[in-house]
Amino acid sequence: MGASPVLEDATADPSNPLMLAESSAIADYLIHKYGNGRLALPPQHPRYADYLYWFHFANGNLQPTVFRRFMTRQFGIPTDDARFKGADERVRTAVGWVDRRLRENEWLAGDEFTAADVMTVWCFTTMRVFEPLDLEGYEGILKWLERCTKREGYRRAMARGDPELDIGELVSVKGPKVHEALGV
Amino acid sequence: MGASPVLEDATADPSNPLMLAESSAIADYLIHKYGNGRLALPPQHPRYADYLYWFHFANGNLQPTVFRRFMTRQFGIPTDDARFKGADERVRTAVGWVDRRLRENEWLAGDEFTAADVMTVWCFTTMRVFEPLDLEGYEGILKWLERCTKREGYRRAMARGDPELDIGELVSVKGPKVHEALGV
Repeated sequence: MGASPVLEDATADPSNPLMLAESSAIADYLIHKYGNGRLALPPQHPRYADYLYWFHFANGNLQPTVFRRFMTRQFGIPTDDARFKGADERVRTAVGWVDRRLRENEWLAGDEFTAADVMTVWCFTTMRVFEPLDLEGYEGILKWLERCTKREGYRRAMARGDPELDIGELVSVKGPKVHEALGV
Repeated sequence: MGASPVLEDATADPSNPLMLAESSAIADYLIHKYGNGRLALPPQHPRYADYLYWFHFANGNLQPTVFRRFMTRQFGIPTDDARFKGADERVRTAVGWVDRRLRENEWLAGDEFTAADVMTVWCFTTMRVFEPLDLEGYEGILKWLERCTKREGYRRAMARGDPELDIGELVSVKGPKVHEALGV
């Protein structure tokens, strides 16, 4: 399928490593198979539903919504066309929804940093290399991005996976320059 | 956000029921909070990665891929345009991928019916009311649809949620008539 990201796990059988795609599947796999449930909240936790909602919101809603506007742009629909405006409005609604959550909570699931934050941070950082997203006025998201990207885990992952990206640019209000192959 | 589906759970506090959107979140919530893990495979199961992959594939890949072609159509891109062809080709790749899996396995995660099947069946049945999908030649999917839709749980859920839909049409090769408001 030509998917990205992909996890290779050679633990069980080094000669025939398991290959796993789908970012949410990879996150669940690592958390529950090797992380002893770390970065997830357990079913009996009072914020379990919040955790699940925000974990799934990143790929189930936010990414497709931004991708829809990306497609509209790639199709050459002018920004004053009702179709572009509709797609843009949906992005603003989704981003505003995340922002409100993060003005009222330190992390998406509440008081604890979880995989919901991990799944979502990509949409407001690296994803902006593919589709611009101006974060002017979204103070909740901007402060949360600061908290997320200061974490040692984030720094280590980026140093390994995307060493060419400038984290300061990724989290800036205007965001990084969109990849030149995509143009804007 | 105006989301659908939504789960209302008044178990903990009848006067202030919990509302949960995102179909994958709802599935995980019911499975792990009330289902004692039923319809999921546990981390120590040899097909755990398969289960996670196909559970997340439905919303993470298949649905967005079909939606992309839907958008292309709604934008009035002609079917002989390279952009339509590209979107259509991606749908065929994704559907072929599911088909191959189901020619080699009874259910998506392997030998057991799981939530991966539940999440995916919608894309090949009810979703075709929104975007046509011809299943000619996809014998793996067609036989699996028969197995899924014969299950009592499916019949009960459809009788309650979508009583106006004809299951025989939903699983037919040509699929149901696309909702008239969407046209084709």
